[in-house]
Amino acid sequence: MPTQFDPPSGTRDLLAQEFERREQAFAVIRSVYGRYGFEPLQTPAFERLEVLMGKYGDDSDKLIFKILRRGEQEASGEADLALRYDLTVPLARVAAAYGSQLPSPYKRYAIGPVWRADRPGKGRYREFVQCDLDTLGSASPLADAEVLCAQHDALVALGVTDFTILLNSRQVLAGLLEAYHIPDQIGPRVLIVLDKLDKLSPAAVVAELQDLGLGEEAGDLVRALTAADSSDRIRVALKPSEQGEAGLAVLDDLLALVSTELPPGRIVFAPRMVRGLSYYTGPIWEHVAPGIPGSLGGGGRYDHLIAQLGGPDVPATGASLGIERILMLPGQEAGPLRRLDVAVAVLDEQYARDAYSFAVASRAAGLRASVYLGSSGKLGKQLRWAADQGARWCVLYGSAERAAGTVTVRDMTTGEQTPVPAAELTGYLASAAGTTLAGTTSAGTTSAG
Amino acid sequence: MPTQFDPPSGTRDLLAQEFERREQAFAVIRSVYGRYGFEPLQTPAFERLEVLMGKYGDDSDKLIFKILRRGEQEASGEADLALRYDLTVPLARVAAAYGSQLPSPYKRYAIGPVWRADRPGKGRYREFVQCDLDTLGSASPLADAEVLCAQHDALVALGVTDFTILLNSRQVLAGLLEAYHIPDQIGPRVLIVLDKLDKLSPAAVVAELQDLGLGEEAGDLVRALTAADSSDRIRVALKPSEQGEAGLAVLDDLLALVSTELPPGRIVFAPRMVRGLSYYTGPIWEHVAPGIPGSLGGGGRYDHLIAQLGGPDVPATGASLGIERILMLPGQEAGPLRRLDVAVAVLDEQYARDAYSFAVASRAAGLRASVYLGSSGKLGKQLRWAADQGARWCVLYGSAERAAGTVTVRDMTTGEQTPVPAAELTGYLASAAGTTLAGTTSAGTTSAG
Repeated sequence: MPTQFDPPSGTRDLLAQEFERREQAFAVIRSVYGRYGFEPLQTPAFERLEVLMGKYGDDSDKLIFKILRRGEQEASGEADLALRYDLTVPLARVAAAYGSQLPSPYKRYAIGPVWRADRPGKGRYREFVQCDLDTLGSASPLADAEVLCAQHDALVALGVTDFTILLNSRQVLAGLLEAYHIPDQIGPRVLIVLDKLDKLSPAAVVAELQDLGLGEEAGDLVRALTAADSSDRIRVALKPSEQGEAGLAVLDDLLALVSTELPPGRIVFAPRMVRGLSYYTGPIWEHVAPGIPGSLGGGGRYDHLIAQLGGPDVPATGASLGIERILMLPGQEAGPLRRLDVAVAVLDEQYARDAYSFAVASRAAGLRASVYLGSSGKLGKQLRWAADQGARWCVLYGSAERAAGTVTVRDMTTGEQTPVPAAELTGYLASAAGTTLAGTTSAGTTSAG
Repeated sequence: MPTQFDPPSGTRDLLAQEFERREQAFAVIRSVYGRYGFEPLQTPAFERLEVLMGKYGDDSDKLIFKILRRGEQEASGEADLALRYDLTVPLARVAAAYGSQLPSPYKRYAIGPVWRADRPGKGRYREFVQCDLDTLGSASPLADAEVLCAQHDALVALGVTDFTILLNSRQVLAGLLEAYHIPDQIGPRVLIVLDKLDKLSPAAVVAELQDLGLGEEAGDLVRALTAADSSDRIRVALKPSEQGEAGLAVLDDLLALVSTELPPGRIVFAPRMVRGLSYYTGPIWEHVAPGIPGSLGGGGRYDHLIAQLGGPDVPATGASLGIERILMLPGQEAGPLRRLDVAVAVLDEQYARDAYSFAVASRAAGLRASVYLGSSGKLGKQLRWAADQGARWCVLYGSAERAAGTVTVRDMTTGEQTPVPAAELTGYLASAAGTTLAGTTSAGTTSAG
């Protein structure tokens, strides 16, 4: 039940635990993309309206969030800016704007939110993050191999191991239409129907193909594409088609390149994988995982799209990871949130200044530390607070400690309490943390500043 | 001269070097804030229009970017959403929405873009990043001390060392008005005039105060505030005022707390520092640096603002860093961009697959590596490319190397070329990187994945 305090429909507030989980995933992806020599690009949240309109098709144009003119022109009700709808159109604009100032080829990644006024649903948001990597300006299959392997490595680095990359190409699909004598004018519609093979039964797809005017070849085509040995059958079927054969040669070249990096069986030739987007011009691929509908990511070569989007006419290849879907996979759950390593109790208001100085001493040991900021001085409440913060230690200081010149360091796991000379707190904690924190991830600790 | 490919007015495209520089600064700030136990919060880019409107005053409301209703309602020209204008109103909404699910007190930081349709100028953008930290739900001076010191430590961690924190409080300012017998009804306007003391001459400020109706006390007040020993003079002048004395006691308490952490002289009582924002209710502070107009950051206690902004009525204290201004300081320039550690030349198309495998081997050593993706095989051009990428090594492989079972590793700094058995490339580079990369920052390298 939405309240007046909920974020707008289709958007989320990311509290600490969820935020950290996502940031860690983005850091992993950035690190892998960087290792392949892709460099970051960040463009503004909004673009001039004319940069976006007419680039995505009429249905998508309706989903663009438009921003009202400001000042006196606001009353006109007209828009002049719009929130970015993807990261590719801004890339095309940047390629046009900066031209030779960019390296050639330009290998860039971009990880950032995009906005679409889609109907919100499970895993479908109006504000969501895209993780794109693209190489503009290289027609080499080496460029496709890099994009494909960088994306693969990012998934593996995220802990996703049970997935397959389906590989196909636009040339192979065109060759298939040719080999099965499907008239050019219905070719695109035939491909759209074939794309339904993972949702509909073969018989239903055959029926739809026959509705388009296909005869016996509909059944032949669907049987060949759904057979257990379909990739071998299609290799044979493509022989009469020049572009089919050429497409296969490109795919085999790409398979040979990536076989240096990918584990055996990770990537397969999948002649029935169509991939909906019409702009691809060469190899196309999709990452599928068992039990997950749709794909974790995909990509392909799209040699003329950048020009169509307003940029220079350069060959291009790129890919995208569906981070929202990846984060829903088993094993991707957020870990427990540790806000503090050291919680410092304030047992007596008159010792607040001492307590603060113990937090300072704890931070000097490179640890996350804070004093209790509440008004109740009760020990039980402050220990609960320390536990809620995920603290490993709680520092206690009262009149007894003051008299002895010590602080009491309580291990929050064992309950064991150790008196430590007040002046030696930093050294004591650094040493204790060096022992008990060893082997944990850096997310749980911070290094000394 | 703007072209059709420029980003919208007042916004920027962040290419790799600038992006990395900013991300490093944000990482430093996040790390410091985290060490004080502040946790991250990220809210959507836009809010429902009614959440934002009426919260910032009429002039500011005009600067809010409003988003058109979508679908059939688009033609109405009405807005229902708006880009966030700051990070405080979203914080108030989150505090209202999540209530007891949030820790109490709620210590959160937020680093993210906000959007204002201001007139763009030098260092003033329509899309810019705010770095906020706030503690909701604690009236303790310990909370003010934490915010103030975390902000201080972040500046130091960013390499900013030459700055002073000016400390004052609303109570002291109120006491000052009382001590100088300034009528309540012109008090706020007097403070606005006093705030001009760092821009106008004392005489000009006295004149403006007299325009407000002040007599001799205008000159007395300005003399006291601008004297070399002004803080001592004001301490004496405040004695007759109960709230002035109370405010001073709070400041002295805060000064004693933070003296545990801050170097001597870093923070000073500055009774003429007014800080424009009217919502502060207790201590206020500002970071000033020599030669920098305005402030690098500021903060203070604002005990009723969260309720005014639609959240619960909780005591609150917070601060913000002006990252755009900080990044303009000397010493904050971007370092050279190293896209690659290892550049692999493709001297002969027939060895492209081998070259790709050498890039794979280099990445296995935890290094950034990529093959040459261009079409010209000329050595000179490929070495220029390697240099442009900032590569430390260039791997060369031609028929001579093939015959010998080696690769040639060229040190891009010395030009020295070393033959390395092809199968040992990963080990060779890992070892070489362990030597020559030691002592460089992590930004220049990547760790083994």
